Amino acid sequence: MSKGEETKSMILDRAVQIASVHGLEGLTIGTLAEELGMSKSGLFAKFSSKENLQIDVLRKGSELFRRFVLYPTLKTKPGIARIRNAFFSWLMWSNRSDLPGGCLFLASSSEFDDKPGVVRDHLRKIQLSWHSSLKQFVEEAKQKGELDSKTNVEQMVQEIWGLVLSFHFYNRLLEDKQVEKRTKQCFNDLIKRHTN
Amino acid sequence: MSKGEETKSMILDRAVQIASVHGLEGLTIGTLAEELGMSKSGLFAKFSSKENLQIDVLRKGSELFRRFVLYPTLKTKPGIARIRNAFFSWLMWSNRSDLPGGCLFLASSSEFDDKPGVVRDHLRKIQLSWHSSLKQFVEEAKQKGELDSKTNVEQMVQEIWGLVLSFHFYNRLLEDKQVEKRTKQCFNDLIKRHTN
Repeated sequence: MSKGEETKSMILDRAVQIASVHGLEGLTIGTLAEELGMSKSGLFAKFSSKENLQIDVLRKGSELFRRFVLYPTLKTKPGIARIRNAFFSWLMWSNRSDLPGGCLFLASSSEFDDKPGVVRDHLRKIQLSWHSSLKQFVEEAKQKGELDSKTNVEQMVQEIWGLVLSFHFYNRLLEDKQVEKRTKQCFNDLIKRHTN
Repeated sequence: MSKGEETKSMILDRAVQIASVHGLEGLTIGTLAEELGMSKSGLFAKFSSKENLQIDVLRKGSELFRRFVLYPTLKTKPGIARIRNAFFSWLMWSNRSDLPGGCLFLASSSEFDDKPGVVRDHLRKIQLSWHSSLKQFVEEAKQKGELDSKTNVEQMVQEIWGLVLSFHFYNRLLEDKQVEKRTKQCFNDLIKRHTN
């Protein structure tokens, strides 16, 4: 990595944190420059527009997500163990201390779902890719006979997604101290219902 | 209602629609004045600050939610019928044509969960109140013997909440055409699991 790339990567680390709290729209070249003690023109030279900065932040976030959630999950053996790893790593990801505002992607999704454009397209692609990985994990568990052959894959993935969304909501807005324990119980019950 | 109150109510109707798309933070006295063809100073006289405007928008949204979701639900008889009415009206609420950006409260929740202050406090109060109504509906159905006496109320409400959040997400960002049908199936399965 060249010195320029290293600087950009360091800038993006901070930008991901800011966006996790203030949203992608709350992240401007101006506020980021102030936060980093850099000149606005210097940052502008690196990202050239707010949209480019937002997309680079999504790319950086996606790189972190793969490192902390996807890759460790792919290292576990296919089947229920892999679904479990995906779910628990995803829950923990949205609660990481270095992402003070929680999951960047969940926050950006409700921010950008009604804003057509390149940022929404990029975000949708990231979400569809994770969605498709989850479907694959459930499919593998069915093929191995660990989950009931009648399990509806799309439905199970939506229920898992709903649990993560509700965890994020109860945890961050309602400040419910029991939510982690309860969410794990919901997940265990879901798996049990589909186990032969 | 005085003429001044009528004007304010009309302004807030439009403000709720804007906030459903651009978020509460995307709603400023300046953009609202432009949208309505009114003077910024005239609007400022009515709301005096962005925070007051945001809280009035939440109040107005809450009034609409009660009218379209809570009151019709309270008219159905206690038990599974009432839970079903609450769920389906809530789903339809987040998909109303006059709320172009979907549910104002779901969008605002991920926007404000990390922003301490009066707006977050107000939003949290609204969400806790609906959460407590849902718990009451499940409790009533248990007491009437329509739901299994072993049903964990908190867990069922979180699962319902997760379904609505996932519906909103799949519908608006993923543009999944099957999501309405699938979400209803998930809900029916959930009720069936807890039925004697």
